[in-house]
Amino acid sequence: MHHELPEEKVFKDPVHKSIYVKDRIIWNLINTKEFQRLRRIRQLGTSYLTFHGAEHSRFSHSLGVYEITRRIISQFERLGDSDWPKEERLTALCASLLHDVGHGPFSHSIEAVFDTHHEEWTCRLLLEDTELNRVLRGVSDDFPERIVSVIRRTHEKPIVVSLVTSQLDADRMDFLLRDAYYTGTHYGTFDIDRILRVMRPHKGRIVVKESGMHAVEDYLMSRYQMYWQVYFHPVTRSSEIVLRQIFRRAKELYRGGWRFDSLLEPLKRLFDGEMTADDYFRLDEPLVQTQFMMWTDEKDPLLADLCRRFLHRRLYKYTTMDEPDEALLDRARQALLDVGLNPSYHLEIDYPYDLPYHIYRPGGDSGPGAQPILLLGEHDELTDIADRSEIVRSIAGIHRGRHHLYYPEDMLLKHRDRLPSDIRRLIGML
Amino acid sequence: MHHELPEEKVFKDPVHKSIYVKDRIIWNLINTKEFQRLRRIRQLGTSYLTFHGAEHSRFSHSLGVYEITRRIISQFERLGDSDWPKEERLTALCASLLHDVGHGPFSHSIEAVFDTHHEEWTCRLLLEDTELNRVLRGVSDDFPERIVSVIRRTHEKPIVVSLVTSQLDADRMDFLLRDAYYTGTHYGTFDIDRILRVMRPHKGRIVVKESGMHAVEDYLMSRYQMYWQVYFHPVTRSSEIVLRQIFRRAKELYRGGWRFDSLLEPLKRLFDGEMTADDYFRLDEPLVQTQFMMWTDEKDPLLADLCRRFLHRRLYKYTTMDEPDEALLDRARQALLDVGLNPSYHLEIDYPYDLPYHIYRPGGDSGPGAQPILLLGEHDELTDIADRSEIVRSIAGIHRGRHHLYYPEDMLLKHRDRLPSDIRRLIGML
Amino acid sequence: MHHELPEEKVFKDPVHKSIYVKDRIIWNLINTKEFQRLRRIRQLGTSYLTFHGAEHSRFSHSLGVYEITRRIISQFERLGDSDWPKEERLTALCASLLHDVGHGPFSHSIEAVFDTHHEEWTCRLLLEDTELNRVLRGVSDDFPERIVSVIRRTHEKPIVVSLVTSQLDADRMDFLLRDAYYTGTHYGTFDIDRILRVMRPHKGRIVVKESGMHAVEDYLMSRYQMYWQVYFHPVTRSSEIVLRQIFRRAKELYRGGWRFDSLLEPLKRLFDGEMTADDYFRLDEPLVQTQFMMWTDEKDPLLADLCRRFLHRRLYKYTTMDEPDEALLDRARQALLDVGLNPSYHLEIDYPYDLPYHIYRPGGDSGPGAQPILLLGEHDELTDIADRSEIVRSIAGIHRGRHHLYYPEDMLLKHRDRLPSDIRRLIGML
Amino acid sequence: MHHELPEEKVFKDPVHKSIYVKDRIIWNLINTKEFQRLRRIRQLGTSYLTFHGAEHSRFSHSLGVYEITRRIISQFERLGDSDWPKEERLTALCASLLHDVGHGPFSHSIEAVFDTHHEEWTCRLLLEDTELNRVLRGVSDDFPERIVSVIRRTHEKPIVVSLVTSQLDADRMDFLLRDAYYTGTHYGTFDIDRILRVMRPHKGRIVVKESGMHAVEDYLMSRYQMYWQVYFHPVTRSSEIVLRQIFRRAKELYRGGWRFDSLLEPLKRLFDGEMTADDYFRLDEPLVQTQFMMWTDEKDPLLADLCRRFLHRRLYKYTTMDEPDEALLDRARQALLDVGLNPSYHLEIDYPYDLPYHIYRPGGDSGPGAQPILLLGEHDELTDIADRSEIVRSIAGIHRGRHHLYYPEDMLLKHRDRLPSDIRRLIGML
Repeated sequence: MHHELPEEKVFKDPVHKSIYVKDRIIWNLINTKEFQRLRRIRQLGTSYLTFHGAEHSRFSHSLGVYEITRRIISQFERLGDSDWPKEERLTALCASLLHDVGHGPFSHSIEAVFDTHHEEWTCRLLLEDTELNRVLRGVSDDFPERIVSVIRRTHEKPIVVSLVTSQLDADRMDFLLRDAYYTGTHYGTFDIDRILRVMRPHKGRIVVKESGMHAVEDYLMSRYQMYWQVYFHPVTRSSEIVLRQIFRRAKELYRGGWRFDSLLEPLKRLFDGEMTADDYFRLDEPLVQTQFMMWTDEKDPLLADLCRRFLHRRLYKYTTMDEPDEALLDRARQALLDVGLNPSYHLEIDYPYDLPYHIYRPGGDSGPGAQPILLLGEHDELTDIADRSEIVRSIAGIHRGRHHLYYPEDMLLKHRDRLPSDIRRLIGML
Repeated sequence: MHHELPEEKVFKDPVHKSIYVKDRIIWNLINTKEFQRLRRIRQLGTSYLTFHGAEHSRFSHSLGVYEITRRIISQFERLGDSDWPKEERLTALCASLLHDVGHGPFSHSIEAVFDTHHEEWTCRLLLEDTELNRVLRGVSDDFPERIVSVIRRTHEKPIVVSLVTSQLDADRMDFLLRDAYYTGTHYGTFDIDRILRVMRPHKGRIVVKESGMHAVEDYLMSRYQMYWQVYFHPVTRSSEIVLRQIFRRAKELYRGGWRFDSLLEPLKRLFDGEMTADDYFRLDEPLVQTQFMMWTDEKDPLLADLCRRFLHRRLYKYTTMDEPDEALLDRARQALLDVGLNPSYHLEIDYPYDLPYHIYRPGGDSGPGAQPILLLGEHDELTDIADRSEIVRSIAGIHRGRHHLYYPEDMLLKHRDRLPSDIRRLIGML
Repeated sequence: MHHELPEEKVFKDPVHKSIYVKDRIIWNLINTKEFQRLRRIRQLGTSYLTFHGAEHSRFSHSLGVYEITRRIISQFERLGDSDWPKEERLTALCASLLHDVGHGPFSHSIEAVFDTHHEEWTCRLLLEDTELNRVLRGVSDDFPERIVSVIRRTHEKPIVVSLVTSQLDADRMDFLLRDAYYTGTHYGTFDIDRILRVMRPHKGRIVVKESGMHAVEDYLMSRYQMYWQVYFHPVTRSSEIVLRQIFRRAKELYRGGWRFDSLLEPLKRLFDGEMTADDYFRLDEPLVQTQFMMWTDEKDPLLADLCRRFLHRRLYKYTTMDEPDEALLDRARQALLDVGLNPSYHLEIDYPYDLPYHIYRPGGDSGPGAQPILLLGEHDELTDIADRSEIVRSIAGIHRGRHHLYYPEDMLLKHRDRLPSDIRRLIGML
Repeated sequence: MHHELPEEKVFKDPVHKSIYVKDRIIWNLINTKEFQRLRRIRQLGTSYLTFHGAEHSRFSHSLGVYEITRRIISQFERLGDSDWPKEERLTALCASLLHDVGHGPFSHSIEAVFDTHHEEWTCRLLLEDTELNRVLRGVSDDFPERIVSVIRRTHEKPIVVSLVTSQLDADRMDFLLRDAYYTGTHYGTFDIDRILRVMRPHKGRIVVKESGMHAVEDYLMSRYQMYWQVYFHPVTRSSEIVLRQIFRRAKELYRGGWRFDSLLEPLKRLFDGEMTADDYFRLDEPLVQTQFMMWTDEKDPLLADLCRRFLHRRLYKYTTMDEPDEALLDRARQALLDVGLNPSYHLEIDYPYDLPYHIYRPGGDSGPGAQPILLLGEHDELTDIADRSEIVRSIAGIHRGRHHLYYPEDMLLKHRDRLPSDIRRLIGML
């Protein structure tokens, strides 16, 4: 088998204009059923309920991450920099293409309720008996493990890991640009061409030429803006809460022996905690949405109501609080009980602290993705960008999150007169 | 009920930047479950298999058509032109918002196989017992019928119809811009601001100031480009063929009494030709995709194979022909039979003539959408743009379509040696 | 005379797409020779020597400021907010159009050397015997003074002043967007539509709805980026230094009685400090450039050299210093003298502190443009944005400027061997 | 001297984002005073009087043509196509950079009146004693002549010529994109990335892969639109007419022995027909504008009036005619004479046939730039695009120009009552 395709394949892409594939292995990976499945998983989960344009899939994003990685590597090769290990090219490209392949439908919600983790599933899909695995083994027997080691950040060459997972990786760059494009906010745009131009391989990691500091500031500022404007949007949080409640309720019923009128097989396996790679493959967003539609007729009124809320976009309303007053909240829960509502579902406090990516965390931390962004000076000295830029320090230090209280306004309104006045005030229902 | 919302609602939209809703009725229509369902129907059907970015829904498009209509009307009102019937504002806005509400999943394919029509379903969803109907009747008892009369082009004021359905309507303007944005081709872009500025109400129709001729040429040229680059793309046609074959095969099996391992209720009702509005409501793209996933295990090998092709994107390949040679095709069908294939599925001729919109058809024609685009001269004289513009005449006259022959290349390759050489040549398999 | 034009005039504009003029007075002001003169004054002075695309004029910018003001006012009128004094519409529009009309060629340099001030000239051009004055008096006898009072920030209604001069005024918004567009940097872009939507008139000033805080952060961040990437660019500073030296040298020669081979009349009047409005009108950039071209043959070798440097873009090189070492600099000056150079021209320290606009200065300050940006809360409470946003505080506090040392590298290179080694090191010439 | 710069130079460019210079010779050419002079020549002549944003210079455009050529060649090299003569790289790059270096101020007008030709001046500036010539001779003694042979289309390798001058050359591609960007019309945009991707060297010329036909159609359509919307704009034609009249009048006066109060040296040399390369170098747009400003005080009232019209933008008005009625025009001229006007200046017929570039002319023609665009089929067969595309044939065949009659409306209005009624009707002054 020739390693290169006879003719370069070109994908039209709204964000990068064109995505180029010249390696046969990349082409074959894209054509596996596991990778094609990513077309049925939205990149931004429930955000389309807030930003109607955000209907793009993880398929698009994964191609984009691949393309950015390809451009970075191709620049490193053109520069002829000996700090870049040429032999890792294919590993880096495959890892960037596949890093999200284990994402399930509405991952964050499912993972929260069922204690699964998409990174684990990525590894399983690469290592078990899948089309992906077969293509990868075509390179060499240990090639699947090599890719997995990049995903797990244990690969022997940290520079390969940092292409895919770092404070300035291809993943983050693609999703900021792509999410900005599809939501229609412009906040996420930054000058990726300029950033790519100032990236350099340097002693086992990727650093940024000092002259690129402002471009990186701009990128981090975009990230900051996207978090507050898009990813933490309270309406999106509301839809995630409803979604999580559906899974929580269904699991509760299932554990309690409830006889569902309809329970699609892959979900049953999820409830049982016994998913095979093939079960996982079948668990996509269409299946989840179809199940929810069936459950709108389920006899449990709570589950049926939650499914209707999600599908017909009748989300929970919210009020904002600086600090939750626990005593008051306890009384609110009691008040809901008194009027026949279920406070463990109909009143939820949310604080957006549990998000997967921080905007920027200066040096020191050993967690994933926590390597600082280093500036490379004229005399090869390295500095954490946070030591040079007040903007970055400022962004890094911000914890502006406020608590939100979510509840079904329509239900509470029915009982408005029976709610104590401080509870009414709490939920803005005076 | 106040007719206006206390505060204008704003949707962030990538194409129009912002979409403004001030009328309570519009807001309520958007919040019906029937309108929210459009989030689960893709605007471009299977095109996402060719252009991975084209994952946008009819929900986005419908909002866009509404917004363009709103801007046109608001300009007519600002101009104070007496040729615009002010009292029709709400009718026009509702009709523009709802004109596509009856679209089903992958409409073109389903309509071809089951002889349904989305326009009919739009009318049923407006007139039968639906949330939409209830909101509309809130205006007046005959309001649903008024909207239907616009959809059916029988409304007494043709100018209202032409806002929604004409050669230069809000529908076409939105879909060209939106499809261009989401596919990442720039061909569909044109200067909508300029076009809106030169539109005028004039004696019961919408015309264009003569000075806007070049802008209209540009718009028609965009349309021409989008048809050839996007809508008629042979890979998209291939996915539509596979999709249509799935429905055809399933219907064939169902009529023959086949016992499906899985047959979701709304599809059964479709097969029986007995859909209620509620059945139709449940028939969305997630359901169709979920059904297809289940059918990949169906015991009929043809159906299972087609479903896998569609979901895993293993589409039919194609070759191009100027004129089909019927005798040769007959021999090709026989050759397929001889090697055990099914020519009624494994060989399909396609000619892209059956598309819903023509690029431009000059005057005279009485069909839907066939009103010519009229230029309004300085002395109020009207001219068909095709009489003034050679570009438009040229575009209108083009029938460049070529026939394509589609087939499962992998299957034929297995029998390559048993195929006669002229058949091998026909399918490019020498 | 009708106040409105029979047909709205539309200017095609790359930044705002279209600029609309409906008021006859605005149209007439644009057509005065004094306003047309702005076509011959570049918006960004010498920046085109750094960013070749930045060749746009103050004419374009002035139209842009007018258009933004028009949109803000038109929104205030649509909102029907009684805090906006409707009768001031025309005053505000004229002031925004004309606020820069007194800018001369390369204003900053000329003002530094000749102690003139463009704001003073704006007022003179409005009040003396000019076409502008005649058009303004067509409104009322005191109308020119009213416009002047806005320019001078003494107008009785501070809200009118703040439209044209404040931390978030039409002037700054246009120049950021326009300079970003023409330089080709994207840093200056921000969501102006969103900002306009959250601006509100409130008790005599313009404030921003709390929900718009992130949009304002983004705008201030753009400003910050534009200052460091474009306005303070060291190459641009170099060209300004050369330019200022030309004026300084010519003035020095003139005061010393030098007989110029060529001295164009308006410049002679500038040297004499006796300019009339008509002299000033004639002093445009083509004249200055033509004079410089003539002076490339002037017998004073210093002046001729400086003019050639400016026209043929042979600018001074620079090195960067954290803190200037005065003793070292003194020795450097002596070293230049020793080799026959002129240290008062051939060695210049620059620190970018003398720039007209600060990025943001929180409350309190009484200087021009120093009103803080106030956020308007749900209960009408006002807060300085710097009290709410760490980003803004961070930007406001940054004084990152470094000193640059500028010198003609080619000249020093000729004497390299005669320069002491610490001086050579100082100018990076080891 | 090393051929390559130690570090690649990057110009920020709004159209191409970045322009890359790696060859030392290109860098040195850019830094000659003759190339820097192009900053003082506008790309679109007087178009800024119609589109205020169109203030960009030939300097920007020349860099852009260079960049497109660089990208095309770099693709040819990557493809490794043996039809591309690698040794011609530097020749092609230099020729593309310098092809416009001989353009003077407002070239079309000056060339029409003084019978000069910018292409001749380009060759003189390359061959005579200039900085450009010195840099080019640094490559080899005959290198200047080689560049000249490309400019004159006599170079031995026609493929090099066709990069710079053909129906689909780097020159046209840059100016369409650039003029669209700076005027703010979007008509000139087309997918240059796609076009570059389908260009191929083939037997001594550049052809286009068949699959790129629609992209070329789109490019030609853009060209068509730009001609009618921008280049032939009647207001721009009016400003050119006034400009030409200024030169015509000044020449007339000079030949008649008029003693000008002011006549700048380079213009005197132009009038005498005795320009040296250095005279031509000094003849830039600032000089012409400065001279015009001085001439607003010239004692010849006609010249002074024309200069004021040009500088203060008081252009001639126009009416449109299908076919000029010569008898009527003769009477109009007499009528102007009767009221004391000068019909040889105050009445001018214009027909936009004398423009430098045609939109597309199918095969056969031997004139400059007239090579047809050839499509390269799968089997290496070549077809003129006009034989395949009805759109192209349609565009090629269009001669829609109408005659315009230009005149100073203000002057004629003063004598309105003394003009015969058919003349009044002719100029729309009823």
